[in-house]
Amino acid sequence: MAPQYAQSLRFRLPPLLFFLQTGFIVVFIVYVDIEQNTNNGYKDEFQDVHVMVILGFGFLATFLVRYSFSGAGFTLLVVAMAVQWAVILNGVESMYHRGNILINMRSLVVAEMCTASSLIAIGAVLGKTNPVHLLLIALLEISGFVLNGWLLQTFVKVQFLNTIMLLHIFGAFFGLMLSWVLYRQGSEQQHEKEKIDRKTGLFSVMGTLFLWMFWPSFNSVLVEVDHLDRGRSLRAVYSTYLALAVSAVTAAGFSVLTSPQGKLNLFHIQRCTLAGGVAIGVAMSAVHLPWVATAIGFAAALISTLGSRYIKPIMLFAFECHDTCGVLSVHGLPGILGWMVQLLLQIADSDDLTTAVRFAVFHICTLLITLSLSMSLGLITGFLLKCHFWRPPQNKKCFDDQAFWEFPHQAGKR
Amino acid sequence: MAPQYAQSLRFRLPPLLFFLQTGFIVVFIVYVDIEQNTNNGYKDEFQDVHVMVILGFGFLATFLVRYSFSGAGFTLLVVAMAVQWAVILNGVESMYHRGNILINMRSLVVAEMCTASSLIAIGAVLGKTNPVHLLLIALLEISGFVLNGWLLQTFVKVQFLNTIMLLHIFGAFFGLMLSWVLYRQGSEQQHEKEKIDRKTGLFSVMGTLFLWMFWPSFNSVLVEVDHLDRGRSLRAVYSTYLALAVSAVTAAGFSVLTSPQGKLNLFHIQRCTLAGGVAIGVAMSAVHLPWVATAIGFAAALISTLGSRYIKPIMLFAFECHDTCGVLSVHGLPGILGWMVQLLLQIADSDDLTTAVRFAVFHICTLLITLSLSMSLGLITGFLLKCHFWRPPQNKKCFDDQAFWEFPHQAGKR
Amino acid sequence: MAPQYAQSLRFRLPPLLFFLQTGFIVVFIVYVDIEQNTNNGYKDEFQDVHVMVILGFGFLATFLVRYSFSGAGFTLLVVAMAVQWAVILNGVESMYHRGNILINMRSLVVAEMCTASSLIAIGAVLGKTNPVHLLLIALLEISGFVLNGWLLQTFVKVQFLNTIMLLHIFGAFFGLMLSWVLYRQGSEQQHEKEKIDRKTGLFSVMGTLFLWMFWPSFNSVLVEVDHLDRGRSLRAVYSTYLALAVSAVTAAGFSVLTSPQGKLNLFHIQRCTLAGGVAIGVAMSAVHLPWVATAIGFAAALISTLGSRYIKPIMLFAFECHDTCGVLSVHGLPGILGWMVQLLLQIADSDDLTTAVRFAVFHICTLLITLSLSMSLGLITGFLLKCHFWRPPQNKKCFDDQAFWEFPHQAGKR
Repeated sequence: MAPQYAQSLRFRLPPLLFFLQTGFIVVFIVYVDIEQNTNNGYKDEFQDVHVMVILGFGFLATFLVRYSFSGAGFTLLVVAMAVQWAVILNGVESMYHRGNILINMRSLVVAEMCTASSLIAIGAVLGKTNPVHLLLIALLEISGFVLNGWLLQTFVKVQFLNTIMLLHIFGAFFGLMLSWVLYRQGSEQQHEKEKIDRKTGLFSVMGTLFLWMFWPSFNSVLVEVDHLDRGRSLRAVYSTYLALAVSAVTAAGFSVLTSPQGKLNLFHIQRCTLAGGVAIGVAMSAVHLPWVATAIGFAAALISTLGSRYIKPIMLFAFECHDTCGVLSVHGLPGILGWMVQLLLQIADSDDLTTAVRFAVFHICTLLITLSLSMSLGLITGFLLKCHFWRPPQNKKCFDDQAFWEFPHQAGKR
Repeated sequence: MAPQYAQSLRFRLPPLLFFLQTGFIVVFIVYVDIEQNTNNGYKDEFQDVHVMVILGFGFLATFLVRYSFSGAGFTLLVVAMAVQWAVILNGVESMYHRGNILINMRSLVVAEMCTASSLIAIGAVLGKTNPVHLLLIALLEISGFVLNGWLLQTFVKVQFLNTIMLLHIFGAFFGLMLSWVLYRQGSEQQHEKEKIDRKTGLFSVMGTLFLWMFWPSFNSVLVEVDHLDRGRSLRAVYSTYLALAVSAVTAAGFSVLTSPQGKLNLFHIQRCTLAGGVAIGVAMSAVHLPWVATAIGFAAALISTLGSRYIKPIMLFAFECHDTCGVLSVHGLPGILGWMVQLLLQIADSDDLTTAVRFAVFHICTLLITLSLSMSLGLITGFLLKCHFWRPPQNKKCFDDQAFWEFPHQAGKR
Repeated sequence: MAPQYAQSLRFRLPPLLFFLQTGFIVVFIVYVDIEQNTNNGYKDEFQDVHVMVILGFGFLATFLVRYSFSGAGFTLLVVAMAVQWAVILNGVESMYHRGNILINMRSLVVAEMCTASSLIAIGAVLGKTNPVHLLLIALLEISGFVLNGWLLQTFVKVQFLNTIMLLHIFGAFFGLMLSWVLYRQGSEQQHEKEKIDRKTGLFSVMGTLFLWMFWPSFNSVLVEVDHLDRGRSLRAVYSTYLALAVSAVTAAGFSVLTSPQGKLNLFHIQRCTLAGGVAIGVAMSAVHLPWVATAIGFAAALISTLGSRYIKPIMLFAFECHDTCGVLSVHGLPGILGWMVQLLLQIADSDDLTTAVRFAVFHICTLLITLSLSMSLGLITGFLLKCHFWRPPQNKKCFDDQAFWEFPHQAGKR
C-alpha cells in the first residue's frame, strides 16, 4: 500500500475491541451483580457527570478543524470501554472480600470520574494517535489512577474523596509524559491542520459550557457519602459555582490583557474558564467560606491563562512536549494550586503545630506519590505505544479525520 | 408557477395546523384537567425523555447537508402537535369512564413516548416529504400505536409497559411500509443532496449523544409505576447503561471490520451505538442480570451494524424501499431481537412447560399483531399521502431546505 | 492606528473586569455566607435554569454568521459577572437587616433570573456593542430590575414571584430604549454581516430548543416557595408545557401564512415558538385551567410572529430603533399580553367589584412603573454608553467576531 494512505486499522482495532469486550462480558458473567435495596440518591448527579464526560469532554475535543468526528467519536468509544474497565477495577477489592462486584449509582459515578481522568490524559495527545492508542492509554491510565487511589488510601490514609479529586493532576501529568515520549520530529512547527475554524470552535465552546454548567455536580456528587452531611454537599455546589463564575471573568480579563491586539483568545475562553472548577475540586474539603472559593477561582484562571499563553510554547520548544489541549495549564497547574490551597487552609485550621506538620507531611507525600506514579506510568505507556505495531498515523495524517473515517461524501453512500 | 420552484405550502400547512390546533384546544376546553394532589415523582425522568425527543431525535435528523433546518425544525413542529394528540388519545378511555382527561407527569411521559414512535416512522421518509405529510404521518402513526397498545392490553393481556416499549418495532415497520409506497422512481441512485458534511455530521452526533446519555431514563421511567418496586427501576437504568456501553464498542468494532479500508463509518457511530438501548428496552422486563444486558448490547449492535451495511442496500434495490435514517437496522431489527430475548428468558424462567408455552403463544401473538397493524397502517397512510393534493416536493427538491424555508440570506432580512 | 482596525480593548475591558471582580470578592469577604441547614429543594430546577441562561440564551445569540463566538462567549462573560452582582444586590436588604448575605439555591435561581432579564436587554443591541458595553448594560439593567422589584413589593404590594416574572417586559423595553439611543446612521439598510448561515442558524436553533425544553422549570421553580403548595408548582409546569407546544404550532402556521412564498422563516421558529413561555410566565398566577394555557400560547405566538414580520421593520424605519434579536416581539409584546390576561382572569375570578377594581388599579400601576423605570433607565444607560471613551466598534466592524477575537487561524497558533 502506498505510504500516502493512512494505514488500515482493520486488523488492529476490531480484534482489540472484541477481545476486551468479550473479556469484560466474561467478568460480568462471573462476578458482577446489581445492588438491590438501593436508593436513587445519586441519580441526578450521575446524570450530570455523565453529560460532562460524554458531551462536555467529547465536544471540547471537536475543536480541530479536520478532527471533530474523531474528537467526539473516539471520546464516546473510549468512555464506553473505560467505564466498564473502571467498574471492574474499582470492584476488585470487593471481589476479593465478598466474591462479587456490585453495580450501583455510586460505582458508576466513580467509574465515570476515573474515565474523566483518562480523557484528560488523552487531551495531551489528541490528534497524534489512533483509536487503538487511545483505548490502551485509557485502560492503562485508569489502572494507574485506581492503583494510586488505593495506595493513598491504604498507606497515607487519604480520604477516598480526596484521592478521586486528584484525577486532574494524575491525568494531566500522565498525558504530558506520554506526549513527551511520543514527540514527533517537526512538531515545533504548527501542523497545518492543527487549527480551529468558526464552526468547530463553536462546537468546542458547547463542550466547555456543558462542563462549566455541570461542574458543581461533579465536585459535589461524592461529598455527601463520605460525610453524611447534607450541608457539605451543597457547600461544594456553591463553592464550585462561584469559583467557576470568577474563573470565567478572570480568564477573559487576562486573555485580553496578554494579547498584543487586546483581543480575546478562544482557547482561553474554552479552557481557562474551567480552571476554577479544577482547583476548587482538589481543595474542596478545606474550603468553608464563599470568598475563598472566589479567590481560588481567580488564582486558578490566572495561572491557567498565563500558562496557556507562556508556558505552553516553552513546553514545546524547550522540552519537546506537544500538548494539544493544553492539559498542563488547564488541569495540571490548577490542580496543584488546589492542592497548595488545601494545604494552607488545613494548616491554618489546625489547632496545634503537631497536627499541622503531620498533615503537611502526609499531604506532600500524597502529591509526590501521585506525580511519580502518573509520570512514570505515562512514560511506560508512551514507550509501549511507540511500537510501530499499533500503526500510528503518519505525520501528514495527524489531526485528520480522513485517516479514520469513511469520509462524508462516501459515508453518505453507505 | 414554473415547475422548478417548490410548490407553496401556504394553503396547505397553515389551514391544517390551525384546524388541528383549534380542535385540540376545543377538546382541552371540554375535557382536559390538571391532576391535583399529585407528586413530582416523574419530573426528572420526564425532563430526560423530553430532551431525548426534542434534542436527540431533532438533531439526529440534521445529518443531511442541505436539510438540517428541516430536520430540527419539523421535529419540533411534529412533537408540539403530536404530544397534544397523544395526551388526548391516551385519555380517551378515562374520558369515557370518568368524563375527563387528567394531565400529569405520567401522561406527558407516555405522550412523549408515543411521539418518539412517530419520529422513528418519520425517519424512514425524511427528506422526501413535506411538513404536511409529516404531521399526518405522526397523527396516524400515534393513533395506530395507541390502538395497538389498547388491543394488546385488552385481548392479549400484555402489561402496559411492554406495549409501550414496542414503539421501536411499530414505528420502524410503519415507516418502512410508508417509504415503500412513497418510493420515487430513480431513488436507487443516491440523491446528490443525500449526504453528510463535516458540520451536519457533528450536529447529528450531538443528537446521538443526547439519546445515548438519557436512554437509561427512557427505559426506566415507566417501570416503577407498574411494579411499585424501586429496585426494578434502577435495574433498568443499569441494564440500559451497560447495554449502550457495549453497543457503542461493538458498533465501532464491526464498522471497522466490515469496511474495506478499515475505517469507521459515521452513520454506524451515529445510529448503531443506540441499538443496545432499543433491544434492552423491549426485553427489559425479563432481564435480571447485568451480563445479560451486556450480551444484548453486543448482539443488537452486531445486527444493527451488519443491517446498515448489507440489508439497507438490499431493501433499496430488491424491495424499492428507501430508508433515509435506516430505521429498519436501528429500531426494527434490534426491537425484534429484544422481543426474542424476552421470549427466551421468560421461557427459561418458567417453572413448568404449560406456563412457558402459554407465554410463548401470547408473546408471538403480540409481535404478530404489532407487525400487521403497523405495516397495514403504514400502507394505508402511504396511499393516502400519495395524493397530489398534499403537494409532495419534486424529486430535485428532496433533501433540500430551500423548498420549505425562507433561505438564510433572505431570512436575515426579515 | 489606522481606522480600519478595531480599537483595542486592552485598556478598557481588563481593568473593568478586575475592578469589578475585586470589588465583588471584597463584598464576599465581608458579607457573604453560605446557608447551613438547607435542603436540596431547588437543585434540579436550578440546574435547568442555569442551562437555559448559559446554553439557551448563549447559543440563541450565535445566529449571526460572523458573530457566533461573541454571541456565546460574551453571554458566558456577562452571566459570570452578572450573577455575582445579582446575588449581592438581592441580598442588600438582608445585609441591612441581618448583617450578611446568605447564598442558597433560591438566591442563585433568583440571580440567574435577573441575569436572564439583562440578556434580553442585550439581545436588542447584540453585534453593535463591545463587551465593555455589555457588562455595563447587564449591571445597570439588573440594578434597575432589582430596584423595580423592590418598589413593586414595597409600594404596590405585588408578590415577589409576579415581580420576577416581569423580567421579560423590563428587559425588552430597557433594551429597546438603549438601542434607540445607540442608533447608528445607516442602520436602516441591513448590515452586510447581519445574516444567518446554515450552520449558525442551527446552533441558534439548539439554543431555542434548550430554552423551549426547560422553560417549564423556569416558570415553576419559584412558585412553590411562595405558596407551599406542591400542586401549584406542577400546574405551572403543565401550563408552560402546553403553552409552548401550542406556541410552536402557531408560530409555524403564521410564519408560513404571512410568507409570500409559503415558506417557514427560521427567525420565527427560533424565537416566536418561545412566546408562549413568556406570556404564560407573566400570567401564571392566574392560570388554573389547561385550555387557558393553550389559548395564551396561541395568542402569544400570533402577536410574536406578526410582530416580527410587520412591527420590526416599522420600529426600524419609523422610530430608528434597530432590534437585533427582536426582543420587542419575543419578550416585550408577549409579556404585555401575559399581563393583560392576568388582569382579565383576576377580574373574572373576583367575587365583587371592589376587589376587581382595586386589583386592576394596582395591576395597571405595576405595568406603568415597570415600563417607565425600564425605559428611563434604558435611555440613561444608552446616553452613558454613547460616550466614545468605551470604544464602540466602528460601523464596518459591527456583527463581526474579528473585532474582539484573536482570529481562528491565529488562535490556532496560541
